[in-house]
Amino acid sequence: MIMDLSPFFVHLVSYFKLALTVLNFSYIITKSMNFKNLQNSLKKELELVANEIRASLDSPIEFIRQVASYLIESGGKRFRPLVLILSARAFGYQGDRVYKIASALEFIHTATLLHDDVVDYAELRRGKPSANVLWGNEATVLVGDFLLARSFLALVKEKDLDILNCVSNATTKMAEGEILQLLKTEEPETTEEDYLEIVRCKTAVLISAAAEVGAIIGNATPDIREKMRNFGMLIGTAFQIADDTLDYITSDETLGKIQGQDFYDGKVTMPFIYTYKSSTDRERNQLSRLLLKKNKKREDFEKVYKILETHDAFKHSFRIAHNYVTEAKNCISFLDEKLRKPLEIIADYTIERTF
Amino acid sequence: MIMDLSPFFVHLVSYFKLALTVLNFSYIITKSMNFKNLQNSLKKELELVANEIRASLDSPIEFIRQVASYLIESGGKRFRPLVLILSARAFGYQGDRVYKIASALEFIHTATLLHDDVVDYAELRRGKPSANVLWGNEATVLVGDFLLARSFLALVKEKDLDILNCVSNATTKMAEGEILQLLKTEEPETTEEDYLEIVRCKTAVLISAAAEVGAIIGNATPDIREKMRNFGMLIGTAFQIADDTLDYITSDETLGKIQGQDFYDGKVTMPFIYTYKSSTDRERNQLSRLLLKKNKKREDFEKVYKILETHDAFKHSFRIAHNYVTEAKNCISFLDEKLRKPLEIIADYTIERTF
Repeated sequence: MIMDLSPFFVHLVSYFKLALTVLNFSYIITKSMNFKNLQNSLKKELELVANEIRASLDSPIEFIRQVASYLIESGGKRFRPLVLILSARAFGYQGDRVYKIASALEFIHTATLLHDDVVDYAELRRGKPSANVLWGNEATVLVGDFLLARSFLALVKEKDLDILNCVSNATTKMAEGEILQLLKTEEPETTEEDYLEIVRCKTAVLISAAAEVGAIIGNATPDIREKMRNFGMLIGTAFQIADDTLDYITSDETLGKIQGQDFYDGKVTMPFIYTYKSSTDRERNQLSRLLLKKNKKREDFEKVYKILETHDAFKHSFRIAHNYVTEAKNCISFLDEKLRKPLEIIADYTIERTF
Repeated sequence: MIMDLSPFFVHLVSYFKLALTVLNFSYIITKSMNFKNLQNSLKKELELVANEIRASLDSPIEFIRQVASYLIESGGKRFRPLVLILSARAFGYQGDRVYKIASALEFIHTATLLHDDVVDYAELRRGKPSANVLWGNEATVLVGDFLLARSFLALVKEKDLDILNCVSNATTKMAEGEILQLLKTEEPETTEEDYLEIVRCKTAVLISAAAEVGAIIGNATPDIREKMRNFGMLIGTAFQIADDTLDYITSDETLGKIQGQDFYDGKVTMPFIYTYKSSTDRERNQLSRLLLKKNKKREDFEKVYKILETHDAFKHSFRIAHNYVTEAKNCISFLDEKLRKPLEIIADYTIERTF
């Protein structure tokens, strides 16, 4: 019996190429450690944010606490709170208003995750059954609404119209981004412009608001506020582009995350758009047909993956994300090195994480 | 052939009793006309609210305007705007801030209708296919989120922390009310206390906020603000109790509203609770069994209806609603008759409408 080893070699070559891509874009463990160290050094502060979160879930309805804390306390990276705290500290603010506001931002973020899961029919979130699977779409929608309303109430109690304006602007944009994304689902002709608009709205604006609010409570000038707003927008954009690219090339069985989830959901992201634009008519037809296919199979994904890889789409996407990070770092060059460094680690993290 | 006419007579007697109940609670056309007249006399103001609504839907995403305006412009009674405008006018406020704020309240109300329809799997809303049927649950959830966020942005731009506090408190309570209602679905042991808490949260708090915001922009004293808040809460409670009672006894084919919709949805409301409390063990078992039955049929509803009617539950419920209206009117007795009258018409309307 002669075994056909060619599929094995095809995979081997494919993984080797992936390893090269990853190395090329500095997925170096030591660098990732910087973010872990930063998280650790702010452990006490993040604990205070967690306390605020628990306090804000003080609804008389036990069920709300149960659903919301299931998600909020289940291993999020607290990215938005970190951006807010470091931004505020960069402007000399040492008080504890940041914890309340950080908790409100985390609520808004969690509300969108809950509603996203309903929209995407998600079955898993961070490796655990998603809220809609455990409690149904109805409860998931309503607890999301509660978190959104509760976050505004918390922000109103801070009595700062600048902060309220900044965050409610962001929340409106976020809803627009989610709707735009829904409209562009299974739309192979989605332009890079549309995609970037979705990315900015659904992800970057809240991170941008976190950075700007830090500047607001640190009493920064309007000029500096704008710089911080841009910094947040740029790292948020990098974050999402990297996320969308990693979706194509990584899986994590422990987190229940499968490779190519976005493709199966019909979401059109940077690697696809880049390839579609620069590919032959034949490839374009194939990409379009596979994206529009109902009940996509693993082999459909592999075909798309192969075309994208041939076009160096992942490398290209990481490069774009990397450019955003560089641009973001330029925005904060005015800060002293000691205050700038943690924000730079955050910026680097957006394209260095492997999940 | 001898025809059995007894079902016909049972129905005839039943409708006759209903007519008596209705007459008994003053469903008199002339009275209802008062509300119509009031709406007409404020037509110009309501047109200004409609303009604000259109202006606030200025999203670059055409789809949002399409979904939102489908619902917002489709024959709502503009009850909350009316309460707000009349309350503000009662305190001498003649400016046009009311229109912007009224439009924000209408957005919040519409957002909850959209999310309600997803939760209830509704097929019709105001006689037209509901948004979830036309555009899917996903878009309906997200457009609801947009309206909620957009309403906050509009309120923030008003730069009044008292108003923001009042409305964001209401919005949080509304989400709690919706969740509590979901938890109490198909729960025959729901207490009157729980039911009233649901009614206050899901309906009355926003009407209460409308009345209080009117007092805020009219620069009323804290004492008067509280009176107006209570007025709104009481008419809102009456409104919902009457609504829930009418749900049992009326249908409107042109609006696609079927008699007993709440029962079919497993919602436990005032007439059921009152009857359950005062009924025999045998009746209680029957009510409980019918409520918990899957795929309820018309005959199931008719059995429940009959038990409730025997206990005079509809009459009782209208009486309770009527008491709330009386109490509400007491709250505004301090106002001059000319300013009080329109608010009294609004209060009466909550239990006089037949749909």
